[in-house]
Amino acid sequence: MRINAHKIFTSSPGDITELEKLIATGVVNPSEVICIVGKTEGNGGRNDFTRDLAMRSFERLFSGLLNIPVEEVQDRIIFSLSGGTEGVVSPHIIVFTQTGGILENKMSEKRLVVGTAYTREFLPHEIGRKEQIDETARVVTELMNSLKLVPQDVHLVQMKGAIPKCSYEEQVQSEKTSRPIRSNMVYSRGASALGVAVALNELPDGVAVTDDHVCHDWSLYSTIASTSAKPGLNRTEIMLFGNSYYSTSDLVIGHGVVRDLIDSVGIKDVLTQLGFEFDVQLSPEQSSRIIGVFAKSEADERGWIRGHRHTMLTDDDISDTRYSRCVLAAVISSILGDTSVYVSTRAEHHGPQGGGNLAIIKKV
Amino acid sequence: MRINAHKIFTSSPGDITELEKLIATGVVNPSEVICIVGKTEGNGGRNDFTRDLAMRSFERLFSGLLNIPVEEVQDRIIFSLSGGTEGVVSPHIIVFTQTGGILENKMSEKRLVVGTAYTREFLPHEIGRKEQIDETARVVTELMNSLKLVPQDVHLVQMKGAIPKCSYEEQVQSEKTSRPIRSNMVYSRGASALGVAVALNELPDGVAVTDDHVCHDWSLYSTIASTSAKPGLNRTEIMLFGNSYYSTSDLVIGHGVVRDLIDSVGIKDVLTQLGFEFDVQLSPEQSSRIIGVFAKSEADERGWIRGHRHTMLTDDDISDTRYSRCVLAAVISSILGDTSVYVSTRAEHHGPQGGGNLAIIKKV
Amino acid sequence: MRINAHKIFTSSPGDITELEKLIATGVVNPSEVICIVGKTEGNGGRNDFTRDLAMRSFERLFSGLLNIPVEEVQDRIIFSLSGGTEGVVSPHIIVFTQTGGILENKMSEKRLVVGTAYTREFLPHEIGRKEQIDETARVVTELMNSLKLVPQDVHLVQMKGAIPKCSYEEQVQSEKTSRPIRSNMVYSRGASALGVAVALNELPDGVAVTDDHVCHDWSLYSTIASTSAKPGLNRTEIMLFGNSYYSTSDLVIGHGVVRDLIDSVGIKDVLTQLGFEFDVQLSPEQSSRIIGVFAKSEADERGWIRGHRHTMLTDDDISDTRYSRCVLAAVISSILGDTSVYVSTRAEHHGPQGGGNLAIIKKV
Amino acid sequence: MRINAHKIFTSSPGDITELEKLIATGVVNPSEVICIVGKTEGNGGRNDFTRDLAMRSFERLFSGLLNIPVEEVQDRIIFSLSGGTEGVVSPHIIVFTQTGGILENKMSEKRLVVGTAYTREFLPHEIGRKEQIDETARVVTELMNSLKLVPQDVHLVQMKGAIPKCSYEEQVQSEKTSRPIRSNMVYSRGASALGVAVALNELPDGVAVTDDHVCHDWSLYSTIASTSAKPGLNRTEIMLFGNSYYSTSDLVIGHGVVRDLIDSVGIKDVLTQLGFEFDVQLSPEQSSRIIGVFAKSEADERGWIRGHRHTMLTDDDISDTRYSRCVLAAVISSILGDTSVYVSTRAEHHGPQGGGNLAIIKKV
Repeated sequence: MRINAHKIFTSSPGDITELEKLIATGVVNPSEVICIVGKTEGNGGRNDFTRDLAMRSFERLFSGLLNIPVEEVQDRIIFSLSGGTEGVVSPHIIVFTQTGGILENKMSEKRLVVGTAYTREFLPHEIGRKEQIDETARVVTELMNSLKLVPQDVHLVQMKGAIPKCSYEEQVQSEKTSRPIRSNMVYSRGASALGVAVALNELPDGVAVTDDHVCHDWSLYSTIASTSAKPGLNRTEIMLFGNSYYSTSDLVIGHGVVRDLIDSVGIKDVLTQLGFEFDVQLSPEQSSRIIGVFAKSEADERGWIRGHRHTMLTDDDISDTRYSRCVLAAVISSILGDTSVYVSTRAEHHGPQGGGNLAIIKKV
Repeated sequence: MRINAHKIFTSSPGDITELEKLIATGVVNPSEVICIVGKTEGNGGRNDFTRDLAMRSFERLFSGLLNIPVEEVQDRIIFSLSGGTEGVVSPHIIVFTQTGGILENKMSEKRLVVGTAYTREFLPHEIGRKEQIDETARVVTELMNSLKLVPQDVHLVQMKGAIPKCSYEEQVQSEKTSRPIRSNMVYSRGASALGVAVALNELPDGVAVTDDHVCHDWSLYSTIASTSAKPGLNRTEIMLFGNSYYSTSDLVIGHGVVRDLIDSVGIKDVLTQLGFEFDVQLSPEQSSRIIGVFAKSEADERGWIRGHRHTMLTDDDISDTRYSRCVLAAVISSILGDTSVYVSTRAEHHGPQGGGNLAIIKKV
Repeated sequence: MRINAHKIFTSSPGDITELEKLIATGVVNPSEVICIVGKTEGNGGRNDFTRDLAMRSFERLFSGLLNIPVEEVQDRIIFSLSGGTEGVVSPHIIVFTQTGGILENKMSEKRLVVGTAYTREFLPHEIGRKEQIDETARVVTELMNSLKLVPQDVHLVQMKGAIPKCSYEEQVQSEKTSRPIRSNMVYSRGASALGVAVALNELPDGVAVTDDHVCHDWSLYSTIASTSAKPGLNRTEIMLFGNSYYSTSDLVIGHGVVRDLIDSVGIKDVLTQLGFEFDVQLSPEQSSRIIGVFAKSEADERGWIRGHRHTMLTDDDISDTRYSRCVLAAVISSILGDTSVYVSTRAEHHGPQGGGNLAIIKKV
Repeated sequence: MRINAHKIFTSSPGDITELEKLIATGVVNPSEVICIVGKTEGNGGRNDFTRDLAMRSFERLFSGLLNIPVEEVQDRIIFSLSGGTEGVVSPHIIVFTQTGGILENKMSEKRLVVGTAYTREFLPHEIGRKEQIDETARVVTELMNSLKLVPQDVHLVQMKGAIPKCSYEEQVQSEKTSRPIRSNMVYSRGASALGVAVALNELPDGVAVTDDHVCHDWSLYSTIASTSAKPGLNRTEIMLFGNSYYSTSDLVIGHGVVRDLIDSVGIKDVLTQLGFEFDVQLSPEQSSRIIGVFAKSEADERGWIRGHRHTMLTDDDISDTRYSRCVLAAVISSILGDTSVYVSTRAEHHGPQGGGNLAIIKKV
């Protein structure tokens, strides 16, 4: 297997001109594209239509190139478009291509492999509960096995979590029962992350996750999951990134924990783990070898950072989601010397409370 | 002269309980307070009333303690309250006190001195023009001389720029002439900074500043000025901070340039200049010795950061002023390991375009 | 009893110059002021400090005039300052004064009377529950009786609802029990309104309100309550407005229901009830006789208005609270021909779902 | 000529399912569609991509139905999509179809006719100046003549104004000359409206419009123009709506002036002109006959409405464009009893300062 990754800057959410050029010049073979991850310049919220606009471009493009109906494009390629390029972040996409499968013979160094899969379809009442956790864990485990990886090799599980539709009346009705429907973004992200944590042995010994842990016990988390969630999606889409001896990619991935929003030490640790030596900021040459940066952020809901009050949660003009993305992306950018970072917010069980996690892909 | 500085966190814009405690316990002598600088949790814009609320508290407090009318408090103490604690910033104030004047005899090391002064009152048509620049330069020069400083000793000139009132009709009328009235925040900040640049020899040799340079030629700037501007203020309030052999303070100040919003190298340079040795983040012990951090920020109006597009200027939901403060404060905080930083935005002639400047005060 | 009301426009939240003039010229006797209701230009949310700023002005003013400590001003006068002057609304206050008590002898026409009172202090676990409803109903009933009113005479009960403080840990702990702490704005407003509905016989026959009804069964509501709620307030402040034969005021009050945000018919009904005859907008003379307009608004949480989708609830850039105030105030203003209206949002049990209620005071 | 109009509600900006149904059932013949006007739920600003998303849907749909390349759809059909459904406004589109041309013989009553045309392409330096005004007036006059209309018959000229691209450097350079480039939204809208005013004799006798009038002399305006402007568009797109004896439509159009944002009288006048008799709100039957409502709004830049201060211009959290659309749409909706109104903001020379204009199409 050989994974390539192309970072492409966009001039607006629907802009695919650079990707079209890479395809026209043979740099990217459309039939080899397995997933596209990117940041679009919306607000990341319910009325963020920039992701839909980007999808229209991708669907029109790949429908023509692959000669398939528009509706089938998302069955062939997994898309993870995240709205919100607050502050310095430059809107961009990363196009991953794959040629070949897992090698028969071991290479001398571990290199990037990627696998994609889907969970089964969920019912509204399963979201945010044991059913979603178990199914997510099952698929992640299968993906890992199919790529000949062990948990230590896995550095990023990018997911788009299911949120099956449920009517206002069903929701209201269920809230009177002991099992209110949790089919919303918060719970779908939380359970997805816990599913990864289960599959990759990230939980403390002896902890058996239950419905009650989801979005309540923040001491349980994955440092590897990265989940967005999409209303109306019935199954969770999963992309697993790891390093394997059975790959000829010239890319490797590493990951780590961001303990709070100003944890430059944690960010540098990931870069050091990837072999970069530097002071406070990568050199332009080093920076140019960074292909993908994926982080999860959260404004600490307790209202404090290192002992001092922050005001992100009490600001009724600007959402804390926008602040936390803005902050963490700025801090990461200042260390990379580059503003093409993917930070997605709401980090339920994605790293410690008030922090998040981080994965970086570099060219060797 | 001995300058002390007390950093105090607030629980809301009008909160002065910690300051009252410091006064009650004798740590702060109210008659020695010369200026108070701080960040309040408003939007930093026209409808930011958090600064007024803070002023009500200070006026009530010092009016009682100094036994003077409420109206005279601002004649005794200079206040520089800046709205906007976006992202991680923790609302806080720094209370500067002074005992004694400039020493007769030289000490072995340069230490912090502070002087305060006012320009004469301006007329609306003088703002943003040569008249404001010259008067600002004159007062800064006098202050510097009175503190026995040379330009190299001065590291921060904190100003609240005058914006004398002018009616809508006068404004409209003047726009038909060759000398439209510039009595607004943009021009008052710009001319104030250029006044400092003139006084401290920061401009290239041979450049004689004219009205046309103000807010047009961004290659001219001060690395030392820090200006906010207040509608209705008729004279500019000036606080000058420098290091002098004729001081017994246990504080020193340094400053530098922030070339763009992700310039962690420039930020570290200032800390290194102040004698801190560290990797990517100060240790808690080092961080505890940082008393004041004052920066100016700006979203690059050309729309690019290090070759990549940013979206701060085309976001019609959130002002670029809030983004640039959020970003620069986050980056600085991540290096300090502390979120009590003062970043004020709109940096017309305050550092290079798209960047800003930075001054830091530490305890020796 | 004679109630006077003075509508005063402000130039900023802390502006009291017009009120000072009215006092200086003897129009307003400060010792007769019983309550001040007003709109300030904040966001009406958690970081709206405009109300605090206004209070500073009022406290300083009345402390001096009444020769009482600043802290006691709120014990002498009830203040109901509501943030949010979205759209056309002009920031203003209405100062109510009272001379004399309830008359011994009946007059020929019913005129405005006002009474003020406080509930006992609440504990956090009582808020949003039967305890708060019952205590509110008790105080409203007492007030009504003390003013010799029957329920049909009461047209507005303006309240500032208690929200006793509760720690994050207590809150989290209580959520694991069958009686989670509801000490927040939503529940305090809801239970306050239901308390009024109970006292004034506004509920359907046979309905006995329980904890489960609060903020769940929207078919139960008061058309007369108007509640804001303030974190940190331990008791609810209550002002009751009605019409009585035992009053010599030259003011009368009426009220009605706003069925949805575009219910111009409901608004006109209240004006007609007050004796105004007009087509689509009051004449300037009629409009000048309107002294106070108090409404509650809510963006319909079902997402529809008269069969068509609205987008107030899915807009993550602007809060629906700001939209609903903006909309209802605009509609009312267009009928009055005047923009000094007080619309406060979040109308839990204040009128039908998606609507609100409305009271108007006119000069006879 | 027969014009039909179909009002269609959308569930999101890209939703065209209802339109597809109307086409599938033969109600709408795609080859007869001449223009589509609609409101999408964006912010109406620079980062509003909802209009682009809607266009993707329309382009895909009509490209398939008309068997033309996607790029040619906008040459066949004129689209006027306006972002911003603040408050109660329900996102919707109105699809206009045309069969036949202007009749040979006069009918007994005037009915709706529509014509569409384009100006020549503009250069950046022509925008906001005499060249744009004259060319706009020329095309409007030609359109009017081609439809056998006189100025009194014309009730709406809907335009998308040209804003040819101009580099940052060209812009900066031009600002040093006596003819700064005005190729922006403000000036393109302003000159477009003045072009209509010229063509339809709306200006006072003897006034010859010059460059200096544009966006300066607000006493000059059209009550009929409705302009948005689109960066990157080189020519202005024009749709003219009038009533003619040579039409068999069952629609008629009327228009009027909105003197300020609470001018319910002006709004009722237009409905009365169209033959509706009602009190304060149309009956549901009357309301169902309203097919299109097109208004322009503006927050009065002088800061006052009927003598009282408004805060729309000093609110740095929410743009006045959003407020003014929200307000005027709410007021109109409250009179119609319906929330499908099209209000577009920025009304430079579109009605009196602080107001706007209004056109309504009804089914006879």
